[in-house]
Amino acid sequence: MAVNLPLPIPEKLTAVAGIELGHAEAGIRKADRKDLLVMKLAPTATVTGVFTKNRFCAAPVQLCKEHLTKRSDKAPIRALVVNTGNANAGTGESGLANAQQTCEALARLLDCAPEQILPFSTGVILEPLPIDRLVAGLPQAIGNLKSDNWHNAALSIMTTDTQPKAASRQVTINGKTVTLTGISKGAGMIKPNMATMLGFLAMDAKVAQPVLDKLVRDVADRSFNCITIDGDTSTNDSFIVMATGTAGVDVTADNTPEYAALYDAVLGLSQELAQMIVRDGEGATKFMTVTVEEGRDAEECRKIAYSIAHSPLVKTAFYASDPNLGRILAAIGYAGVDDLDVTQLNLYLDDVWVAKNGGRHPDYQEADGQRVMKQSEITIRVKLGRGSAASTIWTCDLSHDYVSINADYRS
Amino acid sequence: MAVNLPLPIPEKLTAVAGIELGHAEAGIRKADRKDLLVMKLAPTATVTGVFTKNRFCAAPVQLCKEHLTKRSDKAPIRALVVNTGNANAGTGESGLANAQQTCEALARLLDCAPEQILPFSTGVILEPLPIDRLVAGLPQAIGNLKSDNWHNAALSIMTTDTQPKAASRQVTINGKTVTLTGISKGAGMIKPNMATMLGFLAMDAKVAQPVLDKLVRDVADRSFNCITIDGDTSTNDSFIVMATGTAGVDVTADNTPEYAALYDAVLGLSQELAQMIVRDGEGATKFMTVTVEEGRDAEECRKIAYSIAHSPLVKTAFYASDPNLGRILAAIGYAGVDDLDVTQLNLYLDDVWVAKNGGRHPDYQEADGQRVMKQSEITIRVKLGRGSAASTIWTCDLSHDYVSINADYRS
Repeated sequence: MAVNLPLPIPEKLTAVAGIELGHAEAGIRKADRKDLLVMKLAPTATVTGVFTKNRFCAAPVQLCKEHLTKRSDKAPIRALVVNTGNANAGTGESGLANAQQTCEALARLLDCAPEQILPFSTGVILEPLPIDRLVAGLPQAIGNLKSDNWHNAALSIMTTDTQPKAASRQVTINGKTVTLTGISKGAGMIKPNMATMLGFLAMDAKVAQPVLDKLVRDVADRSFNCITIDGDTSTNDSFIVMATGTAGVDVTADNTPEYAALYDAVLGLSQELAQMIVRDGEGATKFMTVTVEEGRDAEECRKIAYSIAHSPLVKTAFYASDPNLGRILAAIGYAGVDDLDVTQLNLYLDDVWVAKNGGRHPDYQEADGQRVMKQSEITIRVKLGRGSAASTIWTCDLSHDYVSINADYRS
Repeated sequence: MAVNLPLPIPEKLTAVAGIELGHAEAGIRKADRKDLLVMKLAPTATVTGVFTKNRFCAAPVQLCKEHLTKRSDKAPIRALVVNTGNANAGTGESGLANAQQTCEALARLLDCAPEQILPFSTGVILEPLPIDRLVAGLPQAIGNLKSDNWHNAALSIMTTDTQPKAASRQVTINGKTVTLTGISKGAGMIKPNMATMLGFLAMDAKVAQPVLDKLVRDVADRSFNCITIDGDTSTNDSFIVMATGTAGVDVTADNTPEYAALYDAVLGLSQELAQMIVRDGEGATKFMTVTVEEGRDAEECRKIAYSIAHSPLVKTAFYASDPNLGRILAAIGYAGVDDLDVTQLNLYLDDVWVAKNGGRHPDYQEADGQRVMKQSEITIRVKLGRGSAASTIWTCDLSHDYVSINADYRS
């Protein structure tokens, strides 16, 4: 059901020097399924991340934040470990102990301290993590460690995703090639509020820690934080950027041309990975770009864009290719922008001018709306006529399959 | 598909002296369908209402507000007119002109001023109101005017509702019987923010205008403003209370025993009518009561209750009778209560204690959760452990039929 999402071809995923990936079938929830991933980093690497703002943030997320705070040049992050099948969220004290035990087990195998490990989990909430099976699977993952293993890595972090999500790109900075490769997974409980569960991006540039910290926040706000499938912010959202420092390109400050070039590359790849999550949203049949322009500030544009993107009535109309576009006006109207003057508002569906000054455009023909609605990729454009700010959100429709998938997820 | 919603029996709907109802088949959207309703009031009646806060509020809603502001004892509201099949929203200047023309036509037939008429519309947004067919249908509606016509009135305001919604009750005040009868309709785009589209409640007590104005706000906040089906606040929500003043009971102030008795009766009937809308929510198979207790204030309880009630993941889990209750914790966590300490939180499903101090209760058995999930009526109870405020919201599940109904609504 994924919308215009090509399968990643293993040969086209470029290895990033300084990071090795190893997968395992640990039987976390189901047998015979890649469900455990270890990413091992060179000692030169800097790592940073942004995490869910859900108050029920998962035990591994709590530990990740703590370990990133404790890191230093002398004790850098050396590895990441990811399990699917269980979110280790809503699990209280024993959940924290299990996440801690995961780090300790991997640290022993890699000969480092537990604080040098970042743990991640995704899957069902409120169920105890099967820590014994997870720990037992680690040696297999370590045995598989190699640089050229991104495709298996993408497969290992999937839950209800129908396809692995991965992409690579390269950028030339100061005459040298920097390679970036990333993976992500969705596919429900997706309305990231910092970042999505899960996105990992590695590159071989050398990036100073404070610069990397700024980079990840700026990029997340324009990529993973701009997507929504069902408005449910996960307990486990994490977006991690790793710079292994092996390419001979050194980014020391955020006001340099090197930073600008790297930023564009990281943002481009992150948007691609984020959009992949929407394209493979649970039950998705349409990919929708919601752009709100001419607002007073980005925040009110974002409010309105989310209001449209979360409306079940708008989403089902797009699923049906039914130009019942009054539903978009209703969603704009209840978005919470209390002084919005709807008589200044214009609405477009791709190139079709639907509403003018808050009412139906006199020349609007339903056949024109219908033509656009039948496409698999559609842009909803709203012009508020009260300023120059803008925001864009990417989302998908709401189909029978979304209900089926989420009514059956655990069975 | 309605959940435990008995069909209203015409003989059990009590006429309210001072109000007559007349219906018509005007062919607004489809032929051979009751789609027009006139309610004619005695000159002694007081009327008040609360309306949607959607910025795209419909043309008739704008006119209603204006006419209620202009009303006086010398020029009271004399009649209400309701059409289904077209919302007359997102229709700009011509929509306002059409609503005005509706009032003028009915005023001519009833020999009063257009400002003494309140117009209402429900149906598709962004389409021109077929004003000629509406006006042509008015004489038929007037020909049908009678007191004992509430059942037809309830039928006349339905859109995707599968059943008419109506109820009556009586209360004795100062030894005299006061009769109340109300009707309402849903069934999608339901997250009232003031009141729902549409609720009409009539009683034969005499209630002073400022007292009635207070009554409607207090009651709406504890009835129609506590329901949600899909989180979509309509452009046309209206809840109207009419007091015909024929029962010999006079309510002159809100600090009297008469007011208290009347308030209880109006609130009870309004909650019944509001819950009927949820029970007949589009595709609903479960009726859920979400109660959040021990909050610092009612607002934060309400935020969390809505977050649970709007989560597509929670709603689909209830549809499937799948106790995937971690989804409730996730929805609590992203509700926007930023300083929520989840280690103080407890979650119950009816009598089953699911989560204790933010983690799975050690004695919780999935079989117990499963038992409750299979019921058609379920209470989700959250205790925040940080205060003494509480809020309750009523909602329904999200099923395949919701998607089918909204993907097909206009076809």
